[in-house]
Amino acid sequence: MKFKEKNFDKKNVSDAVQKVSAYVPGEQPKGGGWIKLNTNELPYPPSPKAVSAVKLELGSGEKLRLYPDPSSFELRSAIAKFFGLKPENVLAGNGSDDVLNLAVRAFSDKARKIASFDPCYTLYPVLAKIQGSEIVHIPIGKDFKLDIPALLKSGANILFFTNPNAPTGFGFDEKTVAEILEKFDGLVLVDEAYAPFAKYSAAKFVGKYPNLIVSGTLSKGWGLAGMRVGWALGSPAVISTLDKVRDSYNLDRLAQAAGAAAISDKKYHAKVVSAVLRERKKAESFFDKLGWQHPKSSSNFLLVEPKTPCGKSGPKQAGELFEFLKSKKVLVRYFPNSPEINSKIRITIGTPEQMAALEKRVLEWIEKRTRECKCGSLNKQKTKGAKS
Amino acid sequence: MKFKEKNFDKKNVSDAVQKVSAYVPGEQPKGGGWIKLNTNELPYPPSPKAVSAVKLELGSGEKLRLYPDPSSFELRSAIAKFFGLKPENVLAGNGSDDVLNLAVRAFSDKARKIASFDPCYTLYPVLAKIQGSEIVHIPIGKDFKLDIPALLKSGANILFFTNPNAPTGFGFDEKTVAEILEKFDGLVLVDEAYAPFAKYSAAKFVGKYPNLIVSGTLSKGWGLAGMRVGWALGSPAVISTLDKVRDSYNLDRLAQAAGAAAISDKKYHAKVVSAVLRERKKAESFFDKLGWQHPKSSSNFLLVEPKTPCGKSGPKQAGELFEFLKSKKVLVRYFPNSPEINSKIRITIGTPEQMAALEKRVLEWIEKRTRECKCGSLNKQKTKGAKS
Repeated sequence: MKFKEKNFDKKNVSDAVQKVSAYVPGEQPKGGGWIKLNTNELPYPPSPKAVSAVKLELGSGEKLRLYPDPSSFELRSAIAKFFGLKPENVLAGNGSDDVLNLAVRAFSDKARKIASFDPCYTLYPVLAKIQGSEIVHIPIGKDFKLDIPALLKSGANILFFTNPNAPTGFGFDEKTVAEILEKFDGLVLVDEAYAPFAKYSAAKFVGKYPNLIVSGTLSKGWGLAGMRVGWALGSPAVISTLDKVRDSYNLDRLAQAAGAAAISDKKYHAKVVSAVLRERKKAESFFDKLGWQHPKSSSNFLLVEPKTPCGKSGPKQAGELFEFLKSKKVLVRYFPNSPEINSKIRITIGTPEQMAALEKRVLEWIEKRTRECKCGSLNKQKTKGAKS
Repeated sequence: MKFKEKNFDKKNVSDAVQKVSAYVPGEQPKGGGWIKLNTNELPYPPSPKAVSAVKLELGSGEKLRLYPDPSSFELRSAIAKFFGLKPENVLAGNGSDDVLNLAVRAFSDKARKIASFDPCYTLYPVLAKIQGSEIVHIPIGKDFKLDIPALLKSGANILFFTNPNAPTGFGFDEKTVAEILEKFDGLVLVDEAYAPFAKYSAAKFVGKYPNLIVSGTLSKGWGLAGMRVGWALGSPAVISTLDKVRDSYNLDRLAQAAGAAAISDKKYHAKVVSAVLRERKKAESFFDKLGWQHPKSSSNFLLVEPKTPCGKSGPKQAGELFEFLKSKKVLVRYFPNSPEINSKIRITIGTPEQMAALEKRVLEWIEKRTRECKCGSLNKQKTKGAKS
């Protein structure tokens, strides 16, 4: 039967893609008035130098008719300089999601498994499915002690290691990263989207470990999520392999210009990161006083387990708080379909004003729940204590 | 043996990517003074409205910290409007190369072959190799009569049909496109990068043929190669399948803004396309007078077979002319490694000034070859005739 005489047919779709459910990114609400703490963006704009660089490249528009530099050489040079590396150690990606996809395509297939710790960035399993690659999840212990023997036994060809971890926010120490690089007989992609808020970058290990790929992005630490600039760092052999799969013109002219200027402005970057770290400390202290558990964060977000005044935690409570905050135009992230974390909400660290507004709404929710539940005065006192 | 104790090992690379040689894009020369006729860019800048839209979105940079709209809704709406379709018929790509890659991933694998006519856009075989898919090449007849029975016998699941064709420039008529859509029992991707310079778009067949995908780009006809904006058009079922494989944030904020404004400015688009068509006609007439063969072009380029005054054509002559022009800072495209076309050069249609400069250099080359070769006065006269 001819195609046109039938409806669109699943059999025309590749075996792998037939099984794929698309990745669902965090909500990007339309209209103003939102306190947006749901997709881990920086609460500050990018360096003014990035804006100037875009204006310069834009000019009267004449240059836009010409293809961008397919090698993103100036951007790669600026990234290399930031990390004390050479341009041949750097691949430029259309965000770091581009890099993750290239790594899945270059280093996994039916015969080459992927490993990741669990919970992990929910994009990894989607990318693995599109590629038709098996992904092995190794649970992160409750105390964040990684089961390295299980990893070594997995037989995976590449490990996706989110550090600092998403969605927990926890940062693994340098020794753990080095131990994995030493022992694992495959490639290790350290996904460092959140490293600007941690104490070190695994970039320092490039040159020492030929199996290392470090991925990073300007989306979180540099305030450029809107421009899609990311990178892979590694040995020239690893980088040139990823480059074979890369689209020739994956970054447009204005993104290359913005990215190079932003990462070159170290002073501005340090300033905005400090501001986030100050607010993170305050927020951790706020939730500690409430008795709401969260892993110690090395990121620009907290994964918090909401607790009612009656001491109840769970998916129901987390979902309720998420909806309550949303009704007040405070948007955080909730993962109802992830059993490991569906009793928690993820809160991006914002400006002092945004965090004050969040805290106010959290206290309102507790107050509301205090009226609703019948668990007596003890819990009420706890709630009041948290206000101080 | 641990990875760190050995060099980077091919066995860690996926079976498919082990066999890949990266696609080589046309040269993007650094420094000024070039007459750049090698990558089929529009010789005019994009619509001033696109430049204004970028400035508006950029503002003081505040918005750049936020992720772009993952669905590129406004851009898709503008593209849909241009073609008389609905947003659900449109996927926005990071250039049309992004779309081609998504189609390879969604609709081909080890069990689902790709077909293309030969010669074809040299990216197709690279994308097929990365995916590990077989690609069947069906030669285009010398008279551009497509061997449709061979296509039907190919057993391919998707056909990549460049129309107007690259690198020949030839445009197949509507009847041929419809015949293929009727008879081929698989998906037909009509790659319309050059359709702005042809008489019609296959977009009119969306709705009639559920196996149709039309890909397009703002790179050629809208002067926005530097911003990477492309699309796929098709039934909602086809579009949503491609969308499963798409990176959530494949277009940055400024690209979305530039693209939506550019494609909405129909008047400017018509004006610049007319200017290119005028120059194309003049260039065809120039090469006709020289007796240099070229297919009739429906694109913004000509594929010309250079001929020495002694009447010789071939890879040597084409290579020589390419180098001669390059030495005069006129850059055209030469494909030394493609046997079907290595006796030809591809010339992008430029401004009247650029084309005059090209023609001057071509005549100089002929003059030089006249002095060098010893084939008598007859050929000299032919060369002079061409100047008139």
